[in-house]
Amino acid sequence: MRDAYHEELDSIGDGLVEMARLVGSAIGRATTAMLDADLKLAESVIEADQKVDELQHGLEARAIALLARQQPVATDLRIVVTSLRMSADLERSGDLAQHVAKLTRLRFPQRAVPQDLHATILEMGQLAQRLMAKAAEVIVTKDVDLALQLEQDDDEMDLLHRTLFQHLIDDRWKHGIETAVDVTLLGRYYERYADHAVAVAKRVVYLVTGEHADEIQSDIQPVTGVEGA
Amino acid sequence: MRDAYHEELDSIGDGLVEMARLVGSAIGRATTAMLDADLKLAESVIEADQKVDELQHGLEARAIALLARQQPVATDLRIVVTSLRMSADLERSGDLAQHVAKLTRLRFPQRAVPQDLHATILEMGQLAQRLMAKAAEVIVTKDVDLALQLEQDDDEMDLLHRTLFQHLIDDRWKHGIETAVDVTLLGRYYERYADHAVAVAKRVVYLVTGEHADEIQSDIQPVTGVEGA
Repeated sequence: MRDAYHEELDSIGDGLVEMARLVGSAIGRATTAMLDADLKLAESVIEADQKVDELQHGLEARAIALLARQQPVATDLRIVVTSLRMSADLERSGDLAQHVAKLTRLRFPQRAVPQDLHATILEMGQLAQRLMAKAAEVIVTKDVDLALQLEQDDDEMDLLHRTLFQHLIDDRWKHGIETAVDVTLLGRYYERYADHAVAVAKRVVYLVTGEHADEIQSDIQPVTGVEGA
Repeated sequence: MRDAYHEELDSIGDGLVEMARLVGSAIGRATTAMLDADLKLAESVIEADQKVDELQHGLEARAIALLARQQPVATDLRIVVTSLRMSADLERSGDLAQHVAKLTRLRFPQRAVPQDLHATILEMGQLAQRLMAKAAEVIVTKDVDLALQLEQDDDEMDLLHRTLFQHLIDDRWKHGIETAVDVTLLGRYYERYADHAVAVAKRVVYLVTGEHADEIQSDIQPVTGVEGA
């Protein structure tokens, strides 16, 4: 019985990795679609999010069935409950990638992002994808050092986010309000996406060490954008 | 033993209601602070969010202890797992109220919201608070009809959100880009806050009926703002 049980636990872990892989790919493709104003690619990102949602539902159902049948305690219980949370983070990340794709579709055939912000948005998209790839690796390897590294990468995202805002409020901004609104929301989507990737990694730290990541490396403070935290 | 057990379940429900009460108050006070440029009130909202976080941590610890000790199955298991999700929604709602307060602090002594948008932002704040009050009532009463009503109220939020955007992209907008950025983020905070209140209510529907709210009233589609959903 224990073997089937650990197989089930493993399958939940596999499901999380698969979700992370899908939403990592989604944010990369959504960013490309946005910068290229590629409607077809944007549509494919929007559709693909359904697969992420299905994976989440399946994973949750399995986790709850496992709680009911196997009644895990201690570490195993913590793994299952934490997996539920990670799946919620990953599902939400998928939504955010989908929001980027929907903005592309909304503005098509125009480009939502003006040329002088392409490099920054590209960097944000790439960093988001990298963060999620690392989060997936952390799920597989349970590497606490790598997990803590994600917070530093997230600081990079905050810097990019600030660069974006500085462009926006620069007197030379000439792209009008609608584009400013789009870029503001885009910045928020990437920032939140990164937050969720970091949250996934932090939850693994909690599983491995029993401590919350903030307690381990309390000198790393989240630096957020406009909300002035 | 079963009695102590149901007392624990009840105490988790009480914790959720208390969280909803606090974050409902927070969004109301954050909105007032913003419209009045009241730094002291904004600071109090920012500080009070810690209490919400503490409640969430306590609630989660109790829920996990209950899973370990009592090993609930069927409905009771569903209640505990769903409570964990509701507490995450409520904690996030608290963060969003805090973001509104932080924006007030960031712009103080200026007002973040121009006068001609006060009425719309006031309505968004009031509606958000009302949604959360109803969500709390749904937790207490498990009233499915009231829960489904929340989705209609959320449509109202989407309308207000759209009104806000129309103001922004109107050619007569004269408040500059920085204010446009602030208002865009504010709109997003209220919209997300409302989403979480609706999510809480939907989770109660799921608990009571075993069906997801969307399946019951599939004609109500979420209408979101700029992401073009």
